[in-house]
Amino acid sequence: MGVTIKKIAADLKIAVSTVSKALRDSHEISQDTKARILEYAAKMDYTPNPYASSLKGKRSGNIAVVLPEVADSFFSSAIDGIEEVAQQKGYHVMVYLTHEDVSREQSIIREFRNGRVDGVLMSVVANDNQTNHLDELSASETPLVFFDRVCERTKAARVVTDDFDSGYNATQLLIDKGCKRIAFLSMFKDLAITNQRQAGFEKAIRENDFHPEKNPIVYCTNNEADNIAQIKKLLKGKNRPDGIIGSVEKVTTQAYTVCHAIKLAIPDDVRIIGFSHLQIAALLNPSLTTITQPAFEMGKTAAKLLFKALEKKKIDLKNERIVIPSVLVERNSTL
Amino acid sequence: MGVTIKKIAADLKIAVSTVSKALRDSHEISQDTKARILEYAAKMDYTPNPYASSLKGKRSGNIAVVLPEVADSFFSSAIDGIEEVAQQKGYHVMVYLTHEDVSREQSIIREFRNGRVDGVLMSVVANDNQTNHLDELSASETPLVFFDRVCERTKAARVVTDDFDSGYNATQLLIDKGCKRIAFLSMFKDLAITNQRQAGFEKAIRENDFHPEKNPIVYCTNNEADNIAQIKKLLKGKNRPDGIIGSVEKVTTQAYTVCHAIKLAIPDDVRIIGFSHLQIAALLNPSLTTITQPAFEMGKTAAKLLFKALEKKKIDLKNERIVIPSVLVERNSTL
Repeated sequence: MGVTIKKIAADLKIAVSTVSKALRDSHEISQDTKARILEYAAKMDYTPNPYASSLKGKRSGNIAVVLPEVADSFFSSAIDGIEEVAQQKGYHVMVYLTHEDVSREQSIIREFRNGRVDGVLMSVVANDNQTNHLDELSASETPLVFFDRVCERTKAARVVTDDFDSGYNATQLLIDKGCKRIAFLSMFKDLAITNQRQAGFEKAIRENDFHPEKNPIVYCTNNEADNIAQIKKLLKGKNRPDGIIGSVEKVTTQAYTVCHAIKLAIPDDVRIIGFSHLQIAALLNPSLTTITQPAFEMGKTAAKLLFKALEKKKIDLKNERIVIPSVLVERNSTL
Repeated sequence: MGVTIKKIAADLKIAVSTVSKALRDSHEISQDTKARILEYAAKMDYTPNPYASSLKGKRSGNIAVVLPEVADSFFSSAIDGIEEVAQQKGYHVMVYLTHEDVSREQSIIREFRNGRVDGVLMSVVANDNQTNHLDELSASETPLVFFDRVCERTKAARVVTDDFDSGYNATQLLIDKGCKRIAFLSMFKDLAITNQRQAGFEKAIRENDFHPEKNPIVYCTNNEADNIAQIKKLLKGKNRPDGIIGSVEKVTTQAYTVCHAIKLAIPDDVRIIGFSHLQIAALLNPSLTTITQPAFEMGKTAAKLLFKALEKKKIDLKNERIVIPSVLVERNSTL
């Protein structure tokens, strides 16, 4: 089935090796001959066999995007940014989901060993102990770019946003609005981005001489029911917080759900601000103040870095570090 | 680099061909020998070369999910359902996005010709003229299952929800609540699911002796600004609708945006119901009445069908048609 290099060679009365070299854009073949072969191949709708050519040219034409999930609006926008670049370069994007499971991440990365993909863009699972699979990938010939969720211990290019400053600014906004007891809803203990956001929160708490015990850090998980129970306990307890910072989109909307359920008024009883790229933040009840990450731009920038490495093998990206700032958008939840 | 079949054979003092057959689960090899080889391969962290084995066994270990986008909550949940099944089967899921562009869909499908994936799950781009690429895929040896957005003209297994009934029920709910002029926000002229939903709407309009001209169908596009302008014109015009049905999530939230902007009260001025899988529908202002599609179940069911075909080559799925009903959840937007 399909048109082969052999058939193209026979039809054009040219040696098979010449056709093969022309299709790989070899400098051994003249421009005229290349043009004639490529034109005919296009006309015949020739598709290279990805596996056969992978064995020789070590190119799959795929890049991998490894993510914890796609339900978060940050990641769906970041994929759009990555796809914009990949499409221009004629590459396929393969999306792999880890679902916050390090063993799944390890198994996905293991599959990349044998040339299945030419490069990897990655937002890592929260985990501080097992980084061998990331180190191994970083040491391999496959270029790797972390975006958003980076692994601090693994050497690789990274595209991030200003998480520390954003955490600080979010806290300062609540303090400026009059909040006295602010809770920080964290998500993962071993994730650089939430740790940075939390460090920014802690700095603002210190600078304003607030008492750390009255401004607690609450660790949420991937279990929605557990989080709801935990936030409910927090908001029904003594010394109820009058301000909440959601370190990721999910816990922010969960805080809304609890306030609706136990009839706490936002912002009168509790002001809420969240890290989120949610397009419909303005439609929530009340509209949600967000720290909006430049998701699309981060995806696009990470993909551009990756293609830089794919196109010029000698470039070493490992020390590249690009920071794109987030934007704080005030809405009614912090009035 | 890495452990090869040769090394395993040498270490275990078994013929290379025996190891190779055992790893492909050949019936020629005894259970005991297989177990011994698999155990040792696992211990040595053996990874098969996907390209080499693809050339022989014609198995890539990948299934493709081809979707218009991941920003819609339906698709992100459907992916979760697909992943649950694929993971159990030891397969990798590769997500490809078409962004509603039929030429992109064609180029993606073309890449599947040469064994890059073992099977395809697909929600198609809206398009009624160009179906050759789908027909060709359906005629190939690669099993194909449509889910949600099916191509009516192409023979393939399909997993859908009850779009006609849901469109009818949504309209009847608005009529029961007292609406007299209902607008149906459609999305694509050439898409089976929105056409079905619209046909259900038209049936309810007819049965209640409503005048079709006062109950218009408005065609939205993928351009958000255009849709907002169109919906604004609709809601500022004479004979303003007092009920709106959003045929997809995006146009439903756009109708909310317009009502907020021009200060129309939902549900007092306009009642709104939308096809959506949005988890935070209850947090919108006001909470949104939805027809919630069984996204996770649909993804899971489609993947199960695909693996049925992958595991028993002789099964012909082309006439399989599974319908999983949607659920209407009443909230404040239709009070």
